[in-house]
Amino acid sequence: EKKTFIIDGKAVADKIQTEVKNEMLKLGVIPTLAVVLVGKRDDSAQYVRMKVKACAAVGIRNKQIDLPASVSETELSSVIKTLNNDPQIHGILVQMPLPSHINEETIVELIDPLKDVDGLTCSNSGLIYQKGVNAPLIPCTAIGCIRILEFAGINISGKHAVVVGRSKLVGKPVSSLLQSRNATVTMCHSKTANIEAYLKQADIVIAATGKPLFLQGSWFKKGAVIVDVGINPIKDSTKKLGVRFVGDVDFESAKQVASAITPVPGGVGPVTVAMLLHNTMSACKLQQQRQKQASSSSSSKEKKSS
Amino acid sequence: EKKTFIIDGKAVADKIQTEVKNEMLKLGVIPTLAVVLVGKRDDSAQYVRMKVKACAAVGIRNKQIDLPASVSETELSSVIKTLNNDPQIHGILVQMPLPSHINEETIVELIDPLKDVDGLTCSNSGLIYQKGVNAPLIPCTAIGCIRILEFAGINISGKHAVVVGRSKLVGKPVSSLLQSRNATVTMCHSKTANIEAYLKQADIVIAATGKPLFLQGSWFKKGAVIVDVGINPIKDSTKKLGVRFVGDVDFESAKQVASAITPVPGGVGPVTVAMLLHNTMSACKLQQQRQKQASSSSSSKEKKSS
Ligand SMILES: NC(=O)C1=CN([C@@H]2O[C@H](COP(=O)(O)OP(=O)(O)OC[C@H]3O[C@@H](n4cnc5c(N)ncnc54)[C@H](OP(=O)(O)O)[C@@H]3O)[C@@H](O)[C@H]2O)C=CC1
Ligand SMILES: NC(=O)C1=CN([C@@H]2O[C@H](COP(=O)(O)OP(=O)(O)OC[C@H]3O[C@@H](n4cnc5c(N)ncnc54)[C@H](OP(=O)(O)O)[C@@H]3O)[C@@H](O)[C@H]2O)C=CC1
Repeated sequence: EKKTFIIDGKAVADKIQTEVKNEMLKLGVIPTLAVVLVGKRDDSAQYVRMKVKACAAVGIRNKQIDLPASVSETELSSVIKTLNNDPQIHGILVQMPLPSHINEETIVELIDPLKDVDGLTCSNSGLIYQKGVNAPLIPCTAIGCIRILEFAGINISGKHAVVVGRSKLVGKPVSSLLQSRNATVTMCHSKTANIEAYLKQADIVIAATGKPLFLQGSWFKKGAVIVDVGINPIKDSTKKLGVRFVGDVDFESAKQVASAITPVPGGVGPVTVAMLLHNTMSACKLQQQRQKQASSSSSSKEKKSS
Repeated sequence: EKKTFIIDGKAVADKIQTEVKNEMLKLGVIPTLAVVLVGKRDDSAQYVRMKVKACAAVGIRNKQIDLPASVSETELSSVIKTLNNDPQIHGILVQMPLPSHINEETIVELIDPLKDVDGLTCSNSGLIYQKGVNAPLIPCTAIGCIRILEFAGINISGKHAVVVGRSKLVGKPVSSLLQSRNATVTMCHSKTANIEAYLKQADIVIAATGKPLFLQGSWFKKGAVIVDVGINPIKDSTKKLGVRFVGDVDFESAKQVASAITPVPGGVGPVTVAMLLHNTMSACKLQQQRQKQASSSSSSKEKKSS
């Protein structure tokens, strides 16, 4: 019997980082990512530190903007607008969640779509919906799942993919991407009756529910490819912090039936961070194109008027 | 045994038209739909006539703009821009297909999203992706399918819906809508292996492939609800025009197994036209809201500066 392939997310991330470094050499400018952190949540601060460190490793610059939890929506809005108008800033990341007095959707919609490295603005959603993997800026985790499947040599076309979860951040975009790569996609969620019946038929499973160890090995089809997006803290008194992180999939039982599977940690996590660097580089390119177009159209106007 | 419910699209359309008329009374203005027809294709001209007639029946005004097939992309673009800027125009419909020298996507993207009664601009796609049935402007056929299911008293939540087809016009938006109504949705297309296996499990089927009489009765689950979007001409020497129109579903065999089914003609077709009227009315409302917001924000600015 063939051994289950445990997909090394770190190796996928390294590959993406190398790509980013090579592409950056052609840019002629150093991309800068603005990271906006509101409040002092430990987990958010930790995520931001991780992202800033990853930027440094490939030579992307950061501008970190720390705001108090008491900041008003209007103040935060004007911070975003300033970043939009600053030609030195190529990507804008607003770390979620925001304090409850701020409407996250309103803030996200303010971000210049060409600086939207999280791919969450409505206009980028529309492009993902229409163009799938060819969209310019796609949520990092969603496109990260595709990169993982490619790395593992999985042919997506014609396969049945079951996506469990339908969030704007993961489930929806990853479904669009798989479909644009010609998978037949079924999207499951909390209102799905009998999830196991769908999983039993899936060649590819993307698990993004936020329910620790929810999906059991016995639910999958023999030979399925399983990408586990979940990162869920569960109590563990043997750990320094009293918690460890597990996926949405019961890894131990699932790896008995899967042909390939991502572990947690060390699976989707590092790939997501690498894709943030990739998106920052892409955002920088998109803005160079916009500038070029603007200057060529204004020079053609000058010509006309002269 | 229960008799199969043949869903009367004309009755659904009548219900929507009554809604539109009632809503129009509250608007205080008469909505106007601009219909742009490029070239002299018989089928396109026929569709336009049908739409104009439907508008007249509820009291929506039309402005019809006929352009020669030789019109340039630049000229057509400037027509769209003029319509965008005209406060007397509330909806803009560009009849597809356009001549091959014109990029359809470029033209669609020029339409003011609040006048986009076909719901095809990228920004409206993003809203459908994010908000499902709560999006402001949705492609008429896609939302029409939902109205048909509602009319037939079908509970969507928790059901397995299989959508066959993934076009921007029908398959994709109807999938998003069904999912937002809590169906578990599988999207099939020409690269799907073994379509029958998916159909055999479907509680609700939306057929939108453009393949005449493609889906056979024996492929469906007993009791399935079938919405047949297809309108396909096939040769028929007994008809005046030498053709008749059939759906994507083999109606005769399918009605033996379905609990409810739409016929062709007389199913999705009239509902699509009724939803165009609905979208024109909605577009008019959206522009009234925008105007109100603009005038209230400019008056608050005036107050501040005084
Ligand atoms: N590796 C990484 O870098 C990242 C990891 N994550 C992790 O991925 C997981 C999902 O994140 P996210 O998508 O943001 O989470 P959300 O909470 O936004 O969405 C969870 C989705 O799962 C569905 N769901 C919940 N319970 C069930 C159930 N019992 N059966 C089927 N579906 C269910 C929900 O359905 P419904 O819509 O009906 O409520 C919802 O669509 C989390 O563990 C998160 O920490 C997220 C982002 C990045
Ligand atoms: N009732 C009404 O008012 C309307 C009716 N229609 C009718 O609906 C039908 C579909 O229209 P539209 O969506 O615009 O058509 P498109 O041609 O744009 O899309 C057809 C879709 O069907 C898929 N498909 C084609 N062949 C097969 C197959 N053998 N098995 C599975 N899937 C297949 C295609 O897959 P792939 O993407 O892989 O190529 C594609 O996604 C047409 O008959 C059209 O006339 C359309 C709009 C309005």
